[in-house]
Amino acid sequence: MATGGRVNDPDDSAACPLPRGHYPRITLAHGGGGRLTHQLIEDLFLPAFANDLLAQRHDGAVFPVEASRLAMTTDAYVVQPLFFPGGDIGRLAVFGTVNDLAMCGARPLYLSVAFILEEGLPVEQLRQIAQSMRGAADEVGVELVTGDTKVVEKGKGDGVFLTTTGIGVIEHPLVIAPDQVRPGDRLVVSGDLGRHGVAIMAARGHLAFETTIESDCASLAAPVARLLAAGLEPHCLRDLTRGGLASALVEIATAANLQLRLEETAIPVREDVRGACELLGLDPLHLANEGRFLAFLPGDQAEEAVSLLRALPGCEAATIIGEVLPPAHPRVLLRTTIGATRVIEMISGEQLPRIC
Amino acid sequence: MATGGRVNDPDDSAACPLPRGHYPRITLAHGGGGRLTHQLIEDLFLPAFANDLLAQRHDGAVFPVEASRLAMTTDAYVVQPLFFPGGDIGRLAVFGTVNDLAMCGARPLYLSVAFILEEGLPVEQLRQIAQSMRGAADEVGVELVTGDTKVVEKGKGDGVFLTTTGIGVIEHPLVIAPDQVRPGDRLVVSGDLGRHGVAIMAARGHLAFETTIESDCASLAAPVARLLAAGLEPHCLRDLTRGGLASALVEIATAANLQLRLEETAIPVREDVRGACELLGLDPLHLANEGRFLAFLPGDQAEEAVSLLRALPGCEAATIIGEVLPPAHPRVLLRTTIGATRVIEMISGEQLPRIC
Repeated sequence: MATGGRVNDPDDSAACPLPRGHYPRITLAHGGGGRLTHQLIEDLFLPAFANDLLAQRHDGAVFPVEASRLAMTTDAYVVQPLFFPGGDIGRLAVFGTVNDLAMCGARPLYLSVAFILEEGLPVEQLRQIAQSMRGAADEVGVELVTGDTKVVEKGKGDGVFLTTTGIGVIEHPLVIAPDQVRPGDRLVVSGDLGRHGVAIMAARGHLAFETTIESDCASLAAPVARLLAAGLEPHCLRDLTRGGLASALVEIATAANLQLRLEETAIPVREDVRGACELLGLDPLHLANEGRFLAFLPGDQAEEAVSLLRALPGCEAATIIGEVLPPAHPRVLLRTTIGATRVIEMISGEQLPRIC
Repeated sequence: MATGGRVNDPDDSAACPLPRGHYPRITLAHGGGGRLTHQLIEDLFLPAFANDLLAQRHDGAVFPVEASRLAMTTDAYVVQPLFFPGGDIGRLAVFGTVNDLAMCGARPLYLSVAFILEEGLPVEQLRQIAQSMRGAADEVGVELVTGDTKVVEKGKGDGVFLTTTGIGVIEHPLVIAPDQVRPGDRLVVSGDLGRHGVAIMAARGHLAFETTIESDCASLAAPVARLLAAGLEPHCLRDLTRGGLASALVEIATAANLQLRLEETAIPVREDVRGACELLGLDPLHLANEGRFLAFLPGDQAEEAVSLLRALPGCEAATIIGEVLPPAHPRVLLRTTIGATRVIEMISGEQLPRIC
């Protein structure tokens, strides 16, 4: 972060003599690297994210590491609306990056965040998003240690775009990756599917009926840590975001060069989500989730994984949904409710843009 | 990166049966997490960035580390135009993040990149940017190991926004930070100032005259490594991007609670840049640079630093421009060409939006 502000310096007025609080909306100058950038960092980001590393006010954060393996991941967030039932873009960005680290089997440590703001954004919305990010980071025990802010002209952005990048430490000897999946592995899903996608549709007014469906937006760090702490050995983990369960299955089956078989009756989808899908002609397997993952486990570890997960908040609906077969085409098969077999493919177009 | 493609798999047509090369422009579906996202990664990003870590096709990159201290930094890039004399948004993003790591005294190792694309972007432009990023990364010896792509509707973005995040290792015991600056330190600048800002203005047609000024866009990793390898002990390093030399000086003087005094005659500014500034009424101290840094060094190490830097390409104009005094207000003083004294402040508004 271009940190240069001093939070508690009585001489501060010398560095930032402009009156404060007189900018209810973001201006281009907030991204110019001068006094207003300085003031935004000092008045908004430093108080929201306050921690020792950020307080170094340097071009980056410097910290000790004790692990021999690290994981790094990045994601951009362009969700609309910025605030939706069950979350907001800030929570989504923190948990999304934490979850990608968890999927690597890493314990999340540090996050960076880059803001691309549209001129005219109410500063109060930005403050809410920053505070929400801090709250989400505190829930997980990660720190937001460095960042950046740019501003684009009105009509060249859309309120707020975020990019969060995370690093985490790997504290076990396992290799968790698509190419570790083996025939005989069983597929465990950590909860019911499709709530994030339906919540975003509802927030945009795309549903013709009232709904109380909230996004499943949540951290997956604790559930993964629980599996690892119990000595289970997941071969692969994948969070079920854009593209839903279907994309994750096809990607992993392709990367592992194996065939997957699912049981439709086993896939947990809440009645209200299923109802929304039927009305809108959507397939719950393509719907986005922001707090659900798929674990490929050795066959004899799947039941223990399910019982460990079900004891954790948010994972009460964890269950075994399928198994891994030897290589064959097509890659992913679904045994449907009526006993027929259907081939699962990635969605070819766009079900709903900008869900994350 | 939501990597799921297989680059050299003869069975690939099974996973991605859509015809290739039929999408000259980015569509919303390229960001949807389905087949077109998959195809974009496979056909464009994987070939451009190809490396073993990216080939793991996981939610993040996992790698070994051997240092006990790491640095992490992030920056968003929204520069317009995307291609300008001396660089493009891709080169700028790679070098900008590499440079922030260098300013922490770190050796850059790995980068992530998040793309926010506007619907309608020519795919060929994206390919050029990705290839340019790879070229810049190769020059520095860093790898682009993970990433993400989102697409926003036409009119909700502006071609391409990039966010690059970097991690680097710190292989020396020094603490390099604003609060390490001491009275008696001397200020060394690594080259002539202002070229990036003027090059962007020229590229936008803001100059009434022809110019051949190119951006100074370059990596600062090698110059910093050279100083450290020679046993020099910089107290603080800062690259002179948005806000220019003036903002960097005020930020560091404020953070260190010290006074800085500069010699205007010593500050290197090329004649053509100075001419452009005079015509446009700009102060070269506020102009952005993308390949220049300021080093605060113990007084007796400054001359050696200058002579080491001058031997490196891009740093031929390195020179001593000032010194650090005990605490006093105002924070930053400039002794002008005619012997008067002027107070240097951060630019209060916006000289030129979206220069990086």
